[in-house]
This record gives sequence, structure tokens and C-alpha cells, in this order.
Amino acid sequence: MSRYWSPVVHRLTPYVPGEQPKLPQLVKLNTNENPYPPSPRVVAAIAGEMAADGGSLRLYPDPGADRLRAAIAARYGEFGIGMEQVFVGNGSDEVLALAFMALLRHELPILFPDITYSFYPVYCALYEIAYVTVPLREDFRIAVEDYAAANGGIIFPNPNAPTGRLLPLAAIEQLLRTHRQSVVVVDEAYIDFGGESAIALVNRHANLLVVHTLSKSRSLAGLRVGYAIGQRDLIEALERVKNSFNSYPLDRLAIVGAVAAIADEEYFETTRQAVIRSRETLREALLALAFDVLPSAANFIFVRHPQHDAGELAARLRQRGIIVRHFRLPRIEQYLRITVGSDEQCALLLQALQELLARR
Amino acid sequence: MSRYWSPVVHRLTPYVPGEQPKLPQLVKLNTNENPYPPSPRVVAAIAGEMAADGGSLRLYPDPGADRLRAAIAARYGEFGIGMEQVFVGNGSDEVLALAFMALLRHELPILFPDITYSFYPVYCALYEIAYVTVPLREDFRIAVEDYAAANGGIIFPNPNAPTGRLLPLAAIEQLLRTHRQSVVVVDEAYIDFGGESAIALVNRHANLLVVHTLSKSRSLAGLRVGYAIGQRDLIEALERVKNSFNSYPLDRLAIVGAVAAIADEEYFETTRQAVIRSRETLREALLALAFDVLPSAANFIFVRHPQHDAGELAARLRQRGIIVRHFRLPRIEQYLRITVGSDEQCALLLQALQELLARR
Repeated sequence: MSRYWSPVVHRLTPYVPGEQPKLPQLVKLNTNENPYPPSPRVVAAIAGEMAADGGSLRLYPDPGADRLRAAIAARYGEFGIGMEQVFVGNGSDEVLALAFMALLRHELPILFPDITYSFYPVYCALYEIAYVTVPLREDFRIAVEDYAAANGGIIFPNPNAPTGRLLPLAAIEQLLRTHRQSVVVVDEAYIDFGGESAIALVNRHANLLVVHTLSKSRSLAGLRVGYAIGQRDLIEALERVKNSFNSYPLDRLAIVGAVAAIADEEYFETTRQAVIRSRETLREALLALAFDVLPSAANFIFVRHPQHDAGELAARLRQRGIIVRHFRLPRIEQYLRITVGSDEQCALLLQALQELLARR
Repeated sequence: MSRYWSPVVHRLTPYVPGEQPKLPQLVKLNTNENPYPPSPRVVAAIAGEMAADGGSLRLYPDPGADRLRAAIAARYGEFGIGMEQVFVGNGSDEVLALAFMALLRHELPILFPDITYSFYPVYCALYEIAYVTVPLREDFRIAVEDYAAANGGIIFPNPNAPTGRLLPLAAIEQLLRTHRQSVVVVDEAYIDFGGESAIALVNRHANLLVVHTLSKSRSLAGLRVGYAIGQRDLIEALERVKNSFNSYPLDRLAIVGAVAAIADEEYFETTRQAVIRSRETLREALLALAFDVLPSAANFIFVRHPQHDAGELAARLRQRGIIVRHFRLPRIEQYLRITVGSDEQCALLLQALQELLARR
């Protein structure tokens, strides 16, 4: 607390990201990173941008990141997306923050699920946006008919985090039609691991903004690139706020690396299918250990064990060098969110769990 | 204009950065980039971070960028700066934006010069901060005694932009003592080209925040790294806002590249002295062409010609492939801001000017 702080600062409870331990050799299954490295084209493109003496780094990047926006638009060309419908930012967290500021800050409260990405209420505190949470159903489903209240906007991840449950496009379209007066943000960080993207609906719905990240299915959490796709009008709001905040959020290396990642469709397809296969194998193995496993369309699974305390399991796994995510929050305190790692990592996890469960 | 936009979006007039033309072969003297490439250690460090397969890029960066904060603290060790007094961000524009939000948003209006970095009023519009501009003296000096009004904070660049004029530390200290109740932000983007940094005053003044960038004197405009140094209390406010906005503003490559740049003191010293020498040579040559040249402690000079219209000169230089910055703003519309380029670029500029002035 300080007399120098702007009043809002006193009221903030910052987001706490999953631990990024500096110890190597840990089996890190806590922040939903991809077990595979990025496309080899990414490394080549970044090396190329630096050329011999790194001379291009002395120059500002393109503030509009045109090459990247064009590459993303081309990737979704089947849905008629133009580059002027693409907004890019420093990770999808920045894109989301700017969306809260630009599109979700109205008189009426916004709506999001009670169990969801825990950054949403943090953005609301920062921008002084009122919100109401809508409880997930007993089985942790989002039921769109529960979002009936007048609102200043709606946001949810699809698949939802940390549950991994997917909402079909038909349900999203129903929501878009019911709430034509406000923006619906669909945060698709995990969509490539098993869902159909709402980008298909963008040109039919003026109130839809879809947010993606390259951190998960493109294996680029370390490069910080995210984007949003919507009709021109919504993108313009994001650009106005971005250009009033930071002209150049993406550095030169992030731009060329992201372009290369988006371009390598074959590598993307191979690695995402590998993650999906590993997830299904992991799911079967955990069911065999008597875990309850929520259906997941993401690169993580959300599980609980009827006979074992989740916090204790997480602590004991940690003693063995395996980190998973445990949220001490109402309704989900008996669950663990486990990232789908490499097959080797999954095997280490299963072996550890087997031993822990047997010891009881 | 759209019903979907948050009300503040309608009131924004975004910042317009200097042009980043996509044509090569231009003599680009419009955005104060360094004519020298970054330290060779930067390229090596980035290549090292990517290792063989780019595998580290799949992992999130350290959200605290500890290695970078430690390197910056060590660089200013002579002033007793600890790493907990360093805040890092995605370019100094982001650091400034977060400082406006965290430290300059109070009941009273903030103060800044009438002629200064044109992003300041843009941040004020974004965060709905009232401000009052304080006119520079006739000779474009900042006079600290003019900053007498009660205020919610004070901000100015030192050296000032686009004038290049430097305020000595004694004057800054006088300002800090007169305004103990509010934060004074000294934006030192250009300080390494001829001034003494106010970082020397940080541990004596609880209300001082100093902001630096690696874009200018470290030749890393393309990497987007900036930082702020202040007492712990001010840094904590910045961290609270940052962690309510975006946990990972610096990607892995930016972190290691910046660490390498900060570590290479010898290269830094060599290139900054070369820029200073080129500036003085350019200044003499422009005086010989009858330009009025403001004293500059930056890597640009601010000039006017008594017989030639600045806008016309800028347009004619552009026809010859030379871009300088011309601001159509009151008091400075007859000035040009010219980046100190390489000696070759300066020679091309001087030759073009000679021809243009002779043709009259």
C-alpha cells in the first residue's frame, strides 16, 4: 500500500500463473505446454531474420505485423477470413486483456462460468468491469441456456479450462443469436486438440470474437503470440486500444517465428494428433487406476480419485519431481489438472500414481 | 463507431508511430534507430536459447524475467540498485503505459511538457487521466520551476523528444524535492547519448521512476525490451498491474538477447561514442548550411532552416529516398527531427540538403 499507487492498484489481486520451475529434469505437467518442439521451420525463420550480424534487430518491427496477419487469414481462408479481420498480440493473455478493455467494458456486468480461466476476474478488477459468474452444471458442462441475463458481454474458453469440456458449435451459435446486443468472446486456446473452431461462424455473427494462441498446439509458449479473429468492427476496437497502449507488441523474431509455425500445416497436424493419441491412452490408464476422468478436448485432463485427496496427491507427485496443477477453489479442490506430456512423461506419471495409490 | 465498443474506445486517438516502410534502400532517419547492429553476443545468445530443435520455445518464459532483472541491476550496481527495483516490459512503451495506469492515475491532473513524446496524451485518453501541459520555454528548455501546480504526477523525457534538449540532474532533483507527494517519471530513452541518468537519484527519492529502453543505445528496437527502475514500492505497483494484464510480456528470445546486450559494456561504449561523434559532425555540417540546430544529447537532432519550409524539405528528401520526421504541430511545424544515421547515411542526407537548398 502506498500513497503513490493509483487507487485501482490497491484493489488488484494479480493472476498467479502456473509455476515455471528453474530446475531441469522435472516432469512438468502443470502449464499445458506441448511436449513436442515447434516446427523446425520456426528455428530456421528466426535464424534467418537475424541474418549474419543481427542487423535487422536494430530496426523496429512492422507495427501491424502484416505478414503474420496475412498468414493467419490464409490459414482460415476456407471461412473467408481477410487479414483485416485478424488482430495479433503478445500472447493470447494480452489479446484477452485488450478485448476486455475494448469490447467488454459496459454498464451491464459481463458473464462467464464460475469454473473457468482464472485470469478473467483479474482483468475485470484491472478495468473495473462488473461481472456475474454462471455456475457450470453438476457435470461441469456449460449450458448456454443458463446465460439468459442481460449483460455487457460473455466470455468462456472452449474447450473450457481447467475442465477440458467442449461446447459444440451449435450451442455457441445459439448463444450468439440470443445475445446479438453484446460481444461473445470464445477463448479457443485448446481448440486444436479436439474441437471445431468458432472461426467458422465469424462471418455470420457480428458479435463473435474468437481468440487463439500459438502457445499450445503450435508449441510456442516461449514466443508469446496470440490472435483474435472477428468482423472488422470488433478488430478495429482492439486496434484502437492496442495503438493507445503499445505500437509494437510483437518483436521481429516472434513475427517470423509465428509465420513459419502457421505455415507448417503438416507438422501441426502430426504433433496435434500425437497429443490427442497420448491423451486417450492416458485417459484409459487413469480410468484403470479408478480415477474419475472428465471428457477432454484439450491437451490436459481433469481428474479426481474417489479415495485420495487431490492436494495430497499433487504434493506427493511433486516430491517425485512431477508437477501437476491443483486449484484450491470451491467445487474443484478435489481435482487435478494434468497436462498431456510426452509418452515417456505420461508413463512416469502413471508409475508414480500407481505407487502412491498402492501405498494407501 | 459501434455499439459493441466499450465507451472509452470512441474517445481514443491512437498514437501514430514513425513510418516503418517496407521498401529497402531507403535512408531511414525517422524513428531514431541505431545505425549499428546489436552486440554480436545478442545473436549468439538467441541462437543458443533455440539450441538444436528450438525445444525451449515450447516452454513458457520466466514470468519474472529474473535473469534480465539481475543483469540490469548489476549494470547499475554503482547506484546500489537491487533486482527487486527493476521492472521489465515489452518495450519502454509498454512500461510507460503500465506506469500511467499504476502510478499516474489520481484525482489531480498530471503534468508534462507541451512539446514532448506524443504517446503521453494517448495513454491519458486510454486510462482516463486528466493532464495539463506545461509550455517549454522559448528556447525549448524544460524549466522545472514552471511545474508548480498541484498534480497527480509529472512525466517528461530526458533528453526531451523531439527537441533533444537535456535537463541536468540537479534540476531533476529540485523537481523531486518540490513534489514529494507525487511520482516523477523520467523517460530516459535517449540518455546514453549524452546525459547523466537519474538512476543515480533513485535510492534517495521514493517518488522517482526512471524508464529506459534497449531500442536506441542497445540497437534492439526489433526485440522490444524496456525497463523501469525505482524504489520497491513503485516497482510493486507496476508488477501488480502487469500481473493483472499479461504474465509473460517478454518472450524467451527477448530475455536472453537483452541479457547479452546489457552484458556487453565494451560494444555499448564503442557504438554510443560513434553515434555521438557522428551527431557532432552532422551538427557542424548543418550549421554550415545555415540550419538552426538545437543542442542535442540524443541520437537525433532537431533543426529548422530560416529560408525553407520544413514540410517541403521533408517531402523533397522523401522523393530522394531519405525519410526524416516532421510533426505538423504548433510551435514545431518548421522543425525536422533527423536521426543520427551511419556516416554514410549522414553524407547522403547532407548532399541531398545541399542540392535542395541551392535550387531555391
